[in-house]
Amino acid sequence: MNITLSQAEHIIMAAKEKAAEIGTKMNICVVDAGANLVAFVRNDGAWLGSADIAIKKAKTAVFFQMNTEKLSPLVQPGQPLFQIEHSNNGLITFPGGVVIKDANGELIGAIGVSGSTVDDDQTVAEAGVKAFS
Amino acid sequence: MNITLSQAEHIIMAAKEKAAEIGTKMNICVVDAGANLVAFVRNDGAWLGSADIAIKKAKTAVFFQMNTEKLSPLVQPGQPLFQIEHSNNGLITFPGGVVIKDANGELIGAIGVSGSTVDDDQTVAEAGVKAFS
Amino acid sequence: MNITLSQAEHIIMAAKEKAAEIGTKMNICVVDAGANLVAFVRNDGAWLGSADIAIKKAKTAVFFQMNTEKLSPLVQPGQPLFQIEHSNNGLITFPGGVVIKDANGELIGAIGVSGSTVDDDQTVAEAGVKAFS
Amino acid sequence: MNITLSQAEHIIMAAKEKAAEIGTKMNICVVDAGANLVAFVRNDGAWLGSADIAIKKAKTAVFFQMNTEKLSPLVQPGQPLFQIEHSNNGLITFPGGVVIKDANGELIGAIGVSGSTVDDDQTVAEAGVKAFS
Repeated sequence: MNITLSQAEHIIMAAKEKAAEIGTKMNICVVDAGANLVAFVRNDGAWLGSADIAIKKAKTAVFFQMNTEKLSPLVQPGQPLFQIEHSNNGLITFPGGVVIKDANGELIGAIGVSGSTVDDDQTVAEAGVKAFS
Repeated sequence: MNITLSQAEHIIMAAKEKAAEIGTKMNICVVDAGANLVAFVRNDGAWLGSADIAIKKAKTAVFFQMNTEKLSPLVQPGQPLFQIEHSNNGLITFPGGVVIKDANGELIGAIGVSGSTVDDDQTVAEAGVKAFS
Repeated sequence: MNITLSQAEHIIMAAKEKAAEIGTKMNICVVDAGANLVAFVRNDGAWLGSADIAIKKAKTAVFFQMNTEKLSPLVQPGQPLFQIEHSNNGLITFPGGVVIKDANGELIGAIGVSGSTVDDDQTVAEAGVKAFS
Repeated sequence: MNITLSQAEHIIMAAKEKAAEIGTKMNICVVDAGANLVAFVRNDGAWLGSADIAIKKAKTAVFFQMNTEKLSPLVQPGQPLFQIEHSNNGLITFPGGVVIKDANGELIGAIGVSGSTVDDDQTVAEAGVKAFS
């Protein structure tokens, strides 16, 4: 199963509200279970460079069926997945990409958020997913 | 001046309504005056390959400050802009990319639509822009 | 629903048999409904350049939910989709990419074949899909 | 001499069996002595992002005529090949890419495996090569 546009819009709306609540300007996107873009928004004044990062975070989460923050320790120098970012036309392996699962625990997509600190990005991404669950 | 996210969402909502009205499944996006993505949606079941095309149509319209359909005759074999699509990491030069101007006639962005015939794409793109004017 | 590896291997085996029967050396692949690679084989001595073409044919068929041969007339100079190949990191719009549907008519993937004339490519691709139906 | 498709299929079958035996879902591929793809399979439910990684591992092994795990220490910060991954449209320099040699010790190709821990990936790759020797 894939996430629907309606579900993606609901998730993005919740993420936007959290972004506003904590005073940040974000790029937020949702991809489906095939890592294809479903919906995207960029807050006025948000970093332009974060559009691609948000999309790559969401794709990365789907690509490896896990939140991007779980990859961060594994990609450090000397760690098992060092330089994995060179695959798949570029990965982003720091926090802000969070998987979206349906009621049966099946992966149906992921949200990617970028535009502030990685902690803020992660907070906004989680707020989006929480609104769906 | 750049288009705002709120304006982009208004335009996309109108385009979505037109797409539904004519029975099509579309990829719809809005880029700003810097050709950077502002908002994007893909209808459930729409062609996956049209996401990139919708975005490239909108970018192409901003890149050359004209609707993509004006480029179509100029890019034919023997015409002045033949093979221009090789620039800018890929252009799309058929209908479906339409510029968005403010009340003063200033370019503030563009809409790109892909997912059906180019006539349908153009119809949906124009419906989006009309809702803004 | 996505095609399974077992189904893809069955389809590729049938396509390989047809390729041998008509005396050709082919690159044959199957992608899933998200346009992601499931399985691939290259006959000994087949054109190296046809590996990428076979994969792009299969992806193109999924991207637009139609056999690539349907695109061929539409992408000619003066036709509506001229130069569409510049999207999606490269499309292939001549015969040899054929959609795969399940018993309910739902798209679950596509086969891509390249290595001979486009007629031969198409024949081999169709033989693969026929074995699945 | 190059690996044949028949040999590649034999190697992949053995690797698939090992992957199943240790309870993993893998992307497995074989490339020839020219670093060109010969065969590829993705287990149902395996990480989508590992397809490209498996292929890059196999290519990397052929590119430098050594198993990818031998590159890992050399690509760390301060080491001689730091950032080599930027070449060749992207390398993968952690375990899972293993060279394949014929009876005379001549390199005829490589296997690449990705989808689990790098230790599991390496185990499956070695099982594939062992079946050939």
